[in-house]
Amino acid sequence: MSGRDALESPLRVACLQMEPRVGAKADNLARSLALVAEAAGAGAALLVLPELCNTGYVFATREEAFRLAEPVPDGESCRAWGEAARRLGVTIVAGIAERAGDALYNAAVVLGPDGPVGAYRKNHLWGDEALFFEPGDLGVPVFRTPFGRLAVAICYDVWFPETFRLAALQGADLLCVPTNWVPMPNQPSGLPVMANLLVMAGAHANGLFVAAADRVGVERGQPFLGRSLIVGSDGWPLAGPASPEAEEIVAATLNLSQARRGRRLNDVNHVLRDRRTDLYGEVLGAGIRKGWY
Amino acid sequence: MSGRDALESPLRVACLQMEPRVGAKADNLARSLALVAEAAGAGAALLVLPELCNTGYVFATREEAFRLAEPVPDGESCRAWGEAARRLGVTIVAGIAERAGDALYNAAVVLGPDGPVGAYRKNHLWGDEALFFEPGDLGVPVFRTPFGRLAVAICYDVWFPETFRLAALQGADLLCVPTNWVPMPNQPSGLPVMANLLVMAGAHANGLFVAAADRVGVERGQPFLGRSLIVGSDGWPLAGPASPEAEEIVAATLNLSQARRGRRLNDVNHVLRDRRTDLYGEVLGAGIRKGWY
Repeated sequence: MSGRDALESPLRVACLQMEPRVGAKADNLARSLALVAEAAGAGAALLVLPELCNTGYVFATREEAFRLAEPVPDGESCRAWGEAARRLGVTIVAGIAERAGDALYNAAVVLGPDGPVGAYRKNHLWGDEALFFEPGDLGVPVFRTPFGRLAVAICYDVWFPETFRLAALQGADLLCVPTNWVPMPNQPSGLPVMANLLVMAGAHANGLFVAAADRVGVERGQPFLGRSLIVGSDGWPLAGPASPEAEEIVAATLNLSQARRGRRLNDVNHVLRDRRTDLYGEVLGAGIRKGWY
Repeated sequence: MSGRDALESPLRVACLQMEPRVGAKADNLARSLALVAEAAGAGAALLVLPELCNTGYVFATREEAFRLAEPVPDGESCRAWGEAARRLGVTIVAGIAERAGDALYNAAVVLGPDGPVGAYRKNHLWGDEALFFEPGDLGVPVFRTPFGRLAVAICYDVWFPETFRLAALQGADLLCVPTNWVPMPNQPSGLPVMANLLVMAGAHANGLFVAAADRVGVERGQPFLGRSLIVGSDGWPLAGPASPEAEEIVAATLNLSQARRGRRLNDVNHVLRDRRTDLYGEVLGAGIRKGWY
């Protein structure tokens, strides 16, 4: 091993694809903790859970959404995940319905072995989410951890290439994506689902690892896609896509150093530095970083 | 047919995948005209030729590049394509090495049945192109034609999501992509090549049709990918990908109305209006439109 190779720092990442039941919060939390224990036992150090994994997704009323939501990071779910993170020595990224006073957010929390790291609030709300949730107001914060820099996006956020750009331009090595992907129209057989394709394109075009943890099942008539996957900073899958219908842990060993090296494509080109900001401007708002604890 | 359906305006589009030979300009031009005649004879109204289709791609010296380049739209290749467009009643989009005084551009010209429509100069130069060409200075112009609005991007431009954004935000229905795609590292079998994947993602995330005409063959050691394809505004292929190694015409009938309707995803979401410009700003520079004739 050369001195250069010695700089590599492998990180075992796991996406915990699960099937939450709407409203069954205690059961969902218990199931998420069982998957966390299983993945940690198999050596994973960073665990990603789906969007709204403790509450389910398809709320029937605003009141139901409020009743299931909780403060971040001091609510019961965060306390339970945080305790597991501490005990198992892992970092957990989990999607949660956040209640902040009279406001609801479709949020994700990052909980490390030494305590809460930060939170993210979904910027791009999908469908009926807009009836309950406030749009995110934290930008795309990038969190420094001992294993590298990570950002978080939720579901429809990956439809917006600005999400990947903001993460990469702030130095993120890995984008964690708690998600509840739904089918897109006209999906052909023989091609990846569009959600998978969008994260592969975003990873490649920004030299960014992506770990996307989806849910499975059908909830109040809404089917979800599964197919959780972990993508390298070259855009290609390292693990997954997972099953379209079963709970499953998808894990891969990432060398996050590659995100920082791999943005240089050859002796001329670099995926971020080749942007023609003279023609189309910078991505603004990159300074917004209110998601820290 | 309802009154609404009557608004549909089908357009037959063909990508003319060919194999230019570097330096053999007369032969390349003749071959491109033969493919134009064949596609027009089969009913295509908009024909897209590859990047640098009259000169070849891998120039050995700056002098060779200058010698093969010509003025746009008054050089011999544009005159020949323009005459074909007039005679056949079609619109041709062709990649060309443009000489403008002492400057060289990796350009594309749009030639309609009534004369030149506009030109584009590649914004994002790949590899050794930077040794010969100036970076594009026309932004991402959008050209109005009787069949709809079209923009042009060349090869590495599609690595930049800003390209699709600028085209879509200026109202483009269709992005024409003359290209000379080269292999990317670590391509897995069983997945589309990254270039195909990037145009599918860009089309879907912007509600934009894409017609990408690639070259084939190996030139001075550089292999090219072929796999020309036409993608719907939902992101899925309508035709292609073409052969990885043979010349081939790929054609599809597009309903460009769909680009303007399809950006609304449901009763809440719209791929362009859902952008959180309060968080990350507009894409700037969209007003640059110097590519018209």
